[in-house]
Amino acid sequence: MAFSREELIKAVSGQMPAMRWKHTEGVMQSAVMLAERYGADPVKAETAAILHDVAKYWPVKQMEAIIKENDLSKDLLFYDKPLWHAEVGAFVAERDYGITDPEILDAIRYHTSGRIGMTLLDKVVCLADYIEPGRDFPGVNNIRELANHSLEEGLIAGLDSTISLLISRRQIIYPLTVFARNDLIKQLEANV
Amino acid sequence: MAFSREELIKAVSGQMPAMRWKHTEGVMQSAVMLAERYGADPVKAETAAILHDVAKYWPVKQMEAIIKENDLSKDLLFYDKPLWHAEVGAFVAERDYGITDPEILDAIRYHTSGRIGMTLLDKVVCLADYIEPGRDFPGVNNIRELANHSLEEGLIAGLDSTISLLISRRQIIYPLTVFARNDLIKQLEANV
Repeated sequence: MAFSREELIKAVSGQMPAMRWKHTEGVMQSAVMLAERYGADPVKAETAAILHDVAKYWPVKQMEAIIKENDLSKDLLFYDKPLWHAEVGAFVAERDYGITDPEILDAIRYHTSGRIGMTLLDKVVCLADYIEPGRDFPGVNNIRELANHSLEEGLIAGLDSTISLLISRRQIIYPLTVFARNDLIKQLEANV
Repeated sequence: MAFSREELIKAVSGQMPAMRWKHTEGVMQSAVMLAERYGADPVKAETAAILHDVAKYWPVKQMEAIIKENDLSKDLLFYDKPLWHAEVGAFVAERDYGITDPEILDAIRYHTSGRIGMTLLDKVVCLADYIEPGRDFPGVNNIRELANHSLEEGLIAGLDSTISLLISRRQIIYPLTVFARNDLIKQLEANV
């Protein structure tokens, strides 16, 4: 059931509007660039990037069914739906696209929230999603600048921008995102 | 071992610099005002306010010993020291000042962090600590304005200002504060 790179691109791009596929291409490009800069596997980074938003445009009911019927965090159901596609995406990557590498699956699973103890590949894909060339939001250039020097500094700024956005919109903050940025700050402090 | 109001004020004011006692007097005033506005017990609110910062100027070693040797959240030790005085303060209020009312003790314990399922008294004391007349920080007037209409709206804005301050200082965010503001938003949504 292994897909070639081209088969994967064809299958996944068919699951989303052209604009979102353009974003995915940007994440692929940034993920490969970050992987090469920080010593992660660029093939794994690109594969995770191709698949990271595979479930983004799935109907909510379909995502909900996958969360309820499988071994996914039931916690998700209490949080905003935009979070669901990451865990569901990892599930779909394994079930429908034959991805078995746990590093790739985790990088898809945690690309939106982050987590405590992010792997190098988790960090590359999560940060690529913030800085891909098509992104345009307040602070993105600062995150791009930080990403040139430190994966963790870029990521802390990215996750903090998400928390600040949720505060400004008076929306629920997903606790895992706070745990992830706290953990990254502790990692940097431990390395000083 | 019950202290009169005057004995309590005398004993607690002796534990801190004059400036901090002035802040405590402001919290007493705001807590009584909020209690009367929102139907909490003003005597309990004032008692919690008198004691809320009782341990604020205790030596770190002494606070650490109390946390380690008693039934306090050991989690605290992994977070910033300014958080410690609230839990330690509740412990000291019971041990040294004969406070036995669990509502008052909880309002002291959670006055800095908030928590999931804040009681009416928790909310009054926590919000009073943000808006007392001596406070001057960016956004305080907005919090005061919100506090005129809704305890929860004022508190969400207060806790969010704390989270934003920690982000701007690149400091660890105490997860309970995020859980508390998420819970308050859910409470308001449930009441719409």
